Amino acid sequence: MNFNYSLLSTPLDYDGSQLRELFPKSMGAPAGHAAIAFIGSCQVDLDHLVDSDDAHSGRPIYSPSMLHLILEFFGMNLWETVLLQRMLMVKASELLLQKGAEVTRSGDDIYMAHRKLSVSIATASRVSTLVHVGFNLDTAGTPVPTVALSELGFTAETFAVLLLDSFKSELECMWHARCKVWGV
Amino acid sequence: MNFNYSLLSTPLDYDGSQLRELFPKSMGAPAGHAAIAFIGSCQVDLDHLVDSDDAHSGRPIYSPSMLHLILEFFGMNLWETVLLQRMLMVKASELLLQKGAEVTRSGDDIYMAHRKLSVSIATASRVSTLVHVGFNLDTAGTPVPTVALSELGFTAETFAVLLLDSFKSELECMWHARCKVWGV
Amino acid sequence: MNFNYSLLSTPLDYDGSQLRELFPKSMGAPAGHAAIAFIGSCQVDLDHLVDSDDAHSGRPIYSPSMLHLILEFFGMNLWETVLLQRMLMVKASELLLQKGAEVTRSGDDIYMAHRKLSVSIATASRVSTLVHVGFNLDTAGTPVPTVALSELGFTAETFAVLLLDSFKSELECMWHARCKVWGV
Amino acid sequence: MNFNYSLLSTPLDYDGSQLRELFPKSMGAPAGHAAIAFIGSCQVDLDHLVDSDDAHSGRPIYSPSMLHLILEFFGMNLWETVLLQRMLMVKASELLLQKGAEVTRSGDDIYMAHRKLSVSIATASRVSTLVHVGFNLDTAGTPVPTVALSELGFTAETFAVLLLDSFKSELECMWHARCKVWGV
Amino acid sequence: MNFNYSLLSTPLDYDGSQLRELFPKSMGAPAGHAAIAFIGSCQVDLDHLVDSDDAHSGRPIYSPSMLHLILEFFGMNLWETVLLQRMLMVKASELLLQKGAEVTRSGDDIYMAHRKLSVSIATASRVSTLVHVGFNLDTAGTPVPTVALSELGFTAETFAVLLLDSFKSELECMWHARCKVWGV
Amino acid sequence: MNFNYSLLSTPLDYDGSQLRELFPKSMGAPAGHAAIAFIGSCQVDLDHLVDSDDAHSGRPIYSPSMLHLILEFFGMNLWETVLLQRMLMVKASELLLQKGAEVTRSGDDIYMAHRKLSVSIATASRVSTLVHVGFNLDTAGTPVPTVALSELGFTAETFAVLLLDSFKSELECMWHARCKVWGV
Repeated sequence: MNFNYSLLSTPLDYDGSQLRELFPKSMGAPAGHAAIAFIGSCQVDLDHLVDSDDAHSGRPIYSPSMLHLILEFFGMNLWETVLLQRMLMVKASELLLQKGAEVTRSGDDIYMAHRKLSVSIATASRVSTLVHVGFNLDTAGTPVPTVALSELGFTAETFAVLLLDSFKSELECMWHARCKVWGV
Repeated sequence: MNFNYSLLSTPLDYDGSQLRELFPKSMGAPAGHAAIAFIGSCQVDLDHLVDSDDAHSGRPIYSPSMLHLILEFFGMNLWETVLLQRMLMVKASELLLQKGAEVTRSGDDIYMAHRKLSVSIATASRVSTLVHVGFNLDTAGTPVPTVALSELGFTAETFAVLLLDSFKSELECMWHARCKVWGV
Repeated sequence: MNFNYSLLSTPLDYDGSQLRELFPKSMGAPAGHAAIAFIGSCQVDLDHLVDSDDAHSGRPIYSPSMLHLILEFFGMNLWETVLLQRMLMVKASELLLQKGAEVTRSGDDIYMAHRKLSVSIATASRVSTLVHVGFNLDTAGTPVPTVALSELGFTAETFAVLLLDSFKSELECMWHARCKVWGV
Repeated sequence: MNFNYSLLSTPLDYDGSQLRELFPKSMGAPAGHAAIAFIGSCQVDLDHLVDSDDAHSGRPIYSPSMLHLILEFFGMNLWETVLLQRMLMVKASELLLQKGAEVTRSGDDIYMAHRKLSVSIATASRVSTLVHVGFNLDTAGTPVPTVALSELGFTAETFAVLLLDSFKSELECMWHARCKVWGV
Repeated sequence: MNFNYSLLSTPLDYDGSQLRELFPKSMGAPAGHAAIAFIGSCQVDLDHLVDSDDAHSGRPIYSPSMLHLILEFFGMNLWETVLLQRMLMVKASELLLQKGAEVTRSGDDIYMAHRKLSVSIATASRVSTLVHVGFNLDTAGTPVPTVALSELGFTAETFAVLLLDSFKSELECMWHARCKVWGV
Repeated sequence: MNFNYSLLSTPLDYDGSQLRELFPKSMGAPAGHAAIAFIGSCQVDLDHLVDSDDAHSGRPIYSPSMLHLILEFFGMNLWETVLLQRMLMVKASELLLQKGAEVTRSGDDIYMAHRKLSVSIATASRVSTLVHVGFNLDTAGTPVPTVALSELGFTAETFAVLLLDSFKSELECMWHARCKVWGV
């Protein structure tokens, strides 16, 4: 299972509209399962939310600066994509724990004590499925108590590369597990 | 997404033949996505292995006593099942870390330093998919260095209940994540 | 297979726009396979029809008052959803026959002699599949001869509860049938 | 959606082994979704049952003479096949009711008061899915109270043709319903 | 596997908006897997392109006159549809070679030496998948060197009928191949 | 989409039993979509045939020497696999035509005039799908008139490498086509 990623060298603010078909490819990622990483603010208004829980509760998303990852998968249904999203957050959590940060994962959120590190959502387009994850780089003005990646010992770029490399390895390992067994 | 489990009150040795269609139901678990937990030795000869890596390398599986879990899913393909198996091992790993055991997960294996705690496999039958996980309860005579669940602070029954409860919660949480979003 | 439903306590007119992603959840139904029932007029203009047969024939839909059901399924394809829609109409038909009403089902329509009781459609959104069924409560001004639920001995609320309960039971029974067999 | 069927002109006893890949084709039905109908005794021993409920309860199946239908579908999963099986039993029930027989359908069984008319099962092979339905033609020696098709006013051949024709029409009608809608 | 097609008797210009749900049915093709063929210019502006390679490279599509085919499939995923699109181009290529035209196929394009005969794309709607193929009938003003169907010895109508008939036969032959085998 | 292949350096006779789960991997091909190529006789008795047409017609398969390809795909259904098998035969046919051999493809068979070059079948296992293709290297004693690859200008090894390389490229090209489009 091929999975590739690119890091944008220039900042890009996230307002929810980037969670669309072929966004990673349009920003330079190769065609096929891929991710694009970039840095920018995060401001998703109520009417651009795809999370109905947040929308119904009137919880817009805001962070002055985040490391953003947008992943796109092809030929995966939304259930498989939620499972992959969850695994991505597990990998992020493992990286942080290895660095000594006492984080906990709850569903697709990562917390440091009661401070929230990340936001994440998975959804489907007409031709693909998509995941957005944002990790706080700055916490000023966030609507809930938050923690920044830098407090946990990582720069955005290092964390992006480590996370996407380890996710890619886990994907390959899981695909190997799927292809190595006889049936019963 | 319903998921139920039962614990067998009597021991049962695992020789690989239990990894078959409707085994959990035949042992008293309800129909539908389910797991059955039991305690017994683990001895899978080369010709009963479903893992072709192990079979081609001539690595039979042996443990004098294990906590065994057999999970069965319906209408899930093998890829989804491998993703769920991986999540089950993540949950096991999280439980052990919370208890203070310094374990690491590598793919679907859990280790304490270089000692192996578990074996696991996922495969497909004609009507379902199946996962087996075994956690060592005794380490005498195992072909590789192993660690037992008791050394990590858990009895088999407590661990089985905690693990299957937390897996069930994660399943429900992931299904909720799949059903709460608008598309893009 | 979980399936839950809610009844709206206030009237709501149906104009076709309610047949959209997460409408049942947005009106208070739980996340996951669910239905929402409500009472209101039914007026779907030609450009809001999703049935191309009706649209191409220039047949708008109108009823002064209907019991409306909107069902949403997740991870079901449109073929499965049409099969479930058909089964829902079978259950409605069975309920009416048990009450002594001499109805007949033809596809996804229910008739009393040549008077039409219901309208129904199944379609797909980007993240789910949806079914709308409307049962006439009043027949004044309908474009074809119609019959009302009250003429057949049911109040809207009683019928909604009986129908959705029996559909839920049939769903569970069918899922049990899917999960109880060995392959061949 | 093509669906074709053939009627065997010579009797054939059913012992469960006929529920196998390509049985209809091997008896002369065309390749593709198809059914084969034949008349013969029905005797399925415990170790040939594919219904785990029956097997675990020790309920073998016996009837001295039945009208048997074996349907095979390709590219349908087992859930879709259970839905189609259920619809087949609905059609059988509708035919009998139209003839004036006061039958009731409960799941995939048809009853006349407390006498059972039919047995049915759906399962999966490696390349297809299969449905067996048997309708009693003789009731001598059956393990539960039964009713025969002849008591309900049908000969085996007439019933087979009417049922398979009406099922074929319903299939086509449902496929049309799946292919006529715009998405939302 | 049913597949039907219609030929429009009046010209229709293609601007990309015809590649939409139920377009063949709306133009008179039967419901279900189907194709519609028509003659008209081809002009797809950058903002109506569904091919991101063309859009990112700023390559609009233009031909003064083309034979257009729009195929729609139901219950096929986009991968299956790309495979069918590729087979359609193989069939076109085989017809041309049989006529003595020295064409070559490269992916889903057909060339005569370095002159391009065709354009093609496959995509997904919310309820179906769609393929567009255009074969040049006139080459004046095309942005790349092109060849017309007439230079290769075919009128538009003859070619459309031969191609869609042979594609229909290949479809039936492939479906037969899928339904004739025992598993292993 | 990754696809890899290996060529066996020692001969291996094909009797049908090689068409089984993980055969390519067990002979040294990497895990995942893969092919293994080898040279050996081909003798498949009636009771090892998976082609029910051949079995019902009593047509065993025999060739004194063939180039054999066994391909295995994971997570592809049988319909997708038949489409890929067909494409593989198209690629073989294109290679032969480029070499000047006047072959024709009919379904999944390749002929030189009325002499048959190849046999092929696609089927499903419990965990994968499989394709076998055999190209005659020697024609002595074959049950129907045959032609050998050497008569068409190819050695077995050269042809295997050219064919599998070009199939791999076509696969990648088709996967690119699936992943480059916006929906409609």
